[in-house]
Amino acid sequence: MRVSDIASALGIAFGGEDKEITAMNNLRDARPDELSFAANRKHIEALRLSDAGAVLIPVELLDAVPPGAATLVHEDVLLAMAYATKLFASSPIDFDASEATVGKGSFIDPRANIEKGAKIGKGCTVMAGAYIGSNVVIGDESVIYPNAAIYRDCKIGQRCIIHAGTTVGGDGFGFSHTKTGEHVKIYQNGNVVIEDDVELGCNCTVDRAVFASTVIKKGVKIDNLVHIGHNCEIGEYSILVAQVGVAGSTKLGRNTVVSGQSAFAEHLEIAPFTTFTARSGVTKSIHESGKVFSGYPLMEHRQWMRLQSKLAKLVKEQ
Amino acid sequence: MRVSDIASALGIAFGGEDKEITAMNNLRDARPDELSFAANRKHIEALRLSDAGAVLIPVELLDAVPPGAATLVHEDVLLAMAYATKLFASSPIDFDASEATVGKGSFIDPRANIEKGAKIGKGCTVMAGAYIGSNVVIGDESVIYPNAAIYRDCKIGQRCIIHAGTTVGGDGFGFSHTKTGEHVKIYQNGNVVIEDDVELGCNCTVDRAVFASTVIKKGVKIDNLVHIGHNCEIGEYSILVAQVGVAGSTKLGRNTVVSGQSAFAEHLEIAPFTTFTARSGVTKSIHESGKVFSGYPLMEHRQWMRLQSKLAKLVKEQ
Amino acid sequence: MRVSDIASALGIAFGGEDKEITAMNNLRDARPDELSFAANRKHIEALRLSDAGAVLIPVELLDAVPPGAATLVHEDVLLAMAYATKLFASSPIDFDASEATVGKGSFIDPRANIEKGAKIGKGCTVMAGAYIGSNVVIGDESVIYPNAAIYRDCKIGQRCIIHAGTTVGGDGFGFSHTKTGEHVKIYQNGNVVIEDDVELGCNCTVDRAVFASTVIKKGVKIDNLVHIGHNCEIGEYSILVAQVGVAGSTKLGRNTVVSGQSAFAEHLEIAPFTTFTARSGVTKSIHESGKVFSGYPLMEHRQWMRLQSKLAKLVKEQ
Repeated sequence: MRVSDIASALGIAFGGEDKEITAMNNLRDARPDELSFAANRKHIEALRLSDAGAVLIPVELLDAVPPGAATLVHEDVLLAMAYATKLFASSPIDFDASEATVGKGSFIDPRANIEKGAKIGKGCTVMAGAYIGSNVVIGDESVIYPNAAIYRDCKIGQRCIIHAGTTVGGDGFGFSHTKTGEHVKIYQNGNVVIEDDVELGCNCTVDRAVFASTVIKKGVKIDNLVHIGHNCEIGEYSILVAQVGVAGSTKLGRNTVVSGQSAFAEHLEIAPFTTFTARSGVTKSIHESGKVFSGYPLMEHRQWMRLQSKLAKLVKEQ
Repeated sequence: MRVSDIASALGIAFGGEDKEITAMNNLRDARPDELSFAANRKHIEALRLSDAGAVLIPVELLDAVPPGAATLVHEDVLLAMAYATKLFASSPIDFDASEATVGKGSFIDPRANIEKGAKIGKGCTVMAGAYIGSNVVIGDESVIYPNAAIYRDCKIGQRCIIHAGTTVGGDGFGFSHTKTGEHVKIYQNGNVVIEDDVELGCNCTVDRAVFASTVIKKGVKIDNLVHIGHNCEIGEYSILVAQVGVAGSTKLGRNTVVSGQSAFAEHLEIAPFTTFTARSGVTKSIHESGKVFSGYPLMEHRQWMRLQSKLAKLVKEQ
Repeated sequence: MRVSDIASALGIAFGGEDKEITAMNNLRDARPDELSFAANRKHIEALRLSDAGAVLIPVELLDAVPPGAATLVHEDVLLAMAYATKLFASSPIDFDASEATVGKGSFIDPRANIEKGAKIGKGCTVMAGAYIGSNVVIGDESVIYPNAAIYRDCKIGQRCIIHAGTTVGGDGFGFSHTKTGEHVKIYQNGNVVIEDDVELGCNCTVDRAVFASTVIKKGVKIDNLVHIGHNCEIGEYSILVAQVGVAGSTKLGRNTVVSGQSAFAEHLEIAPFTTFTARSGVTKSIHESGKVFSGYPLMEHRQWMRLQSKLAKLVKEQ
């Protein structure tokens, strides 16, 4: 798709050189054949440094456009961005992919639903009712239990276990909003990458990225009913206990331990070897490794213990 | 079924005119061919005003029965009501329905499981492993992802997206209780109505109504692992983030925003344009629009911020 | 498998008589043909009293080994135990089982996925997309809704209802840890036993036991998105509302009532007829019956009410 096509779809003009654009991405990661966007002055530095081939911006950021980038000026950049994601969205199924391939020694139940383009490694088990989307790649010796669903273009490593009812690659939860309060879908054009030796329990949900990938790194173990938002990165050997939720773009360092029903706000970074006790509510990044946290609002565990003893005293007072 | 049949099934006598009864309903909505019930004196006014064709009541409410309504007197109305719902329950599958129909331009994967009586609109996509129950209606251009399950008689609007693993129309959680502590199922004879432009994330659960409909109104967007109880109404353009729970019969006004892991008790009404921050616990109705709430127990957000700063001080005190 | 085979697989020697070992179990329940383990001196009494045919122990517990038990000495018992569970693990499917059987008057949708060895009773309904694993037993008149998944060897009672998307028998969440922070799966070689008249809502997860059984007793009713960990026991006629989580090995007494989003830590025992209000966080056993609890940390409901009124006062203070 050319810049001129995007401009025309958005009903606006464009500046600079018309060129082929293959995808959308954020300012930092965008390449010369990708479209990016900056909603306001907060992003001015990232805009200046971006390699994007085209940028969607408000008029006041025109001066910060890097040389060579085509410009698409819109008064509501976030709304225009949402409309633009639709232009690059894949259909749920890739009907044009080549036949799925299966490695030696794998058992693929004939009642599993495998789409074209899937590549399943050696020694895998894919059980009845499991759904393997178009172009999904599954590494050797992985097991996909019944009725798990892996959306198109996701990647699963070696020796992974995906339990029944778990979904990998559902759309991240992203919308722009009109002035009258309607929501416009930001199409989630990325995927999910699950590295080796990961186990996902039953009925979990791991959302695909808006751009690029949601990543579950090597050796992570996840219990049941856990939610991982789009563009998250879960560090190596982390453990997430049942009913935990991680909002979009949050990154957990390696060996993070998250006890049951805890939750993370979006866009956080958590230092490696951090432990969260049950039902922690994490709204700020954590920079120092190896500590234990509790509560909502979050505090160090010993402080939380102290708070509880103060509250116990408060209850007893006349 | 006639009033005399119901009386006989419950092992009691009936008063008034024997007549054909087609369904059960609450006192307010019941029509002259429906059975309703009043458990105690709290419902006496609603009973007086009801158009129900027959009412199940304790003996002390006999005086308040509206003229023309047949009476079924029982010493444990809630228990008798539960037994009566079974008389009107549908089987999980309607074997007698006519062949399912599919509109022009729809792609229905042959590995999807479509029951008889389903009506799928134009330009829809129904993916492998999705279950479309008997007599389900799906509007044009909707997408049903793999392994989603829509129970019989539910209605989905146009341009809806139902993600993998989500269930629509499971039984609401309703039971009456015997004196010895056993639970008797209240059959959930209503359905779910999802209006246009709604998106439901992965592994959500939207329960069918006991009578009438659970309703998700136009433009609502729901994240993953969200629970909507029976007879809820989610107002237009509301947003519910991951792992939220809404208990039975609660009504959210339009453009309600509910952040992650929040929950609502049953039978509440929430004013439009209300925002709830993460993990709010809502146990009372909210009558004024446009406010922001937090915490459990719930309070206005600025009060909650104040409480947190007081608690932080408390922790530091000797 | 013989003790010598286990020793060889673990790369260690063994003491005592070589003999056939058929399974693993905890010290208390292990029989003379089973392997058990004791990680440290806390388990010394249980070790002394065990009927296990072989025990995996650290060298300092050698003196406490009961007469007749073969010994496997390892410096990291928990890690060795995890490796040993793999030796006894079943594959996800039992290809050698005999043909599945179905009782009179049952409707098994031809699009349901039934493995060999399954025994389905009379008058059951198993709907399209439901997965019934190898050797699963389902009692008379039970209903399994679409896309529910019951893993191999689990047992479902009579008149049970398992709603769409629910998984029964997924692996419990158990791992041992290497010195470098990797996690080694403890294979979950037990099953789930669901007694008569149980209803499980949509998208619940009930994990199989590591040894023996996770048990849901007669008449229990469970709402949507509830998690039950491995080796739990849910007492007769208990009620668990939506989004509740119960961690491994916790036992609820009969007629426990657990309101929405509550959670239990592992290895607790809860007295019968206990009630928990919404979002209770239970970290200690409860020994006295019939009380009502709230909050996290948990306290008696009236104390929690008192705490909330104190906190409300605190907010108002200057």
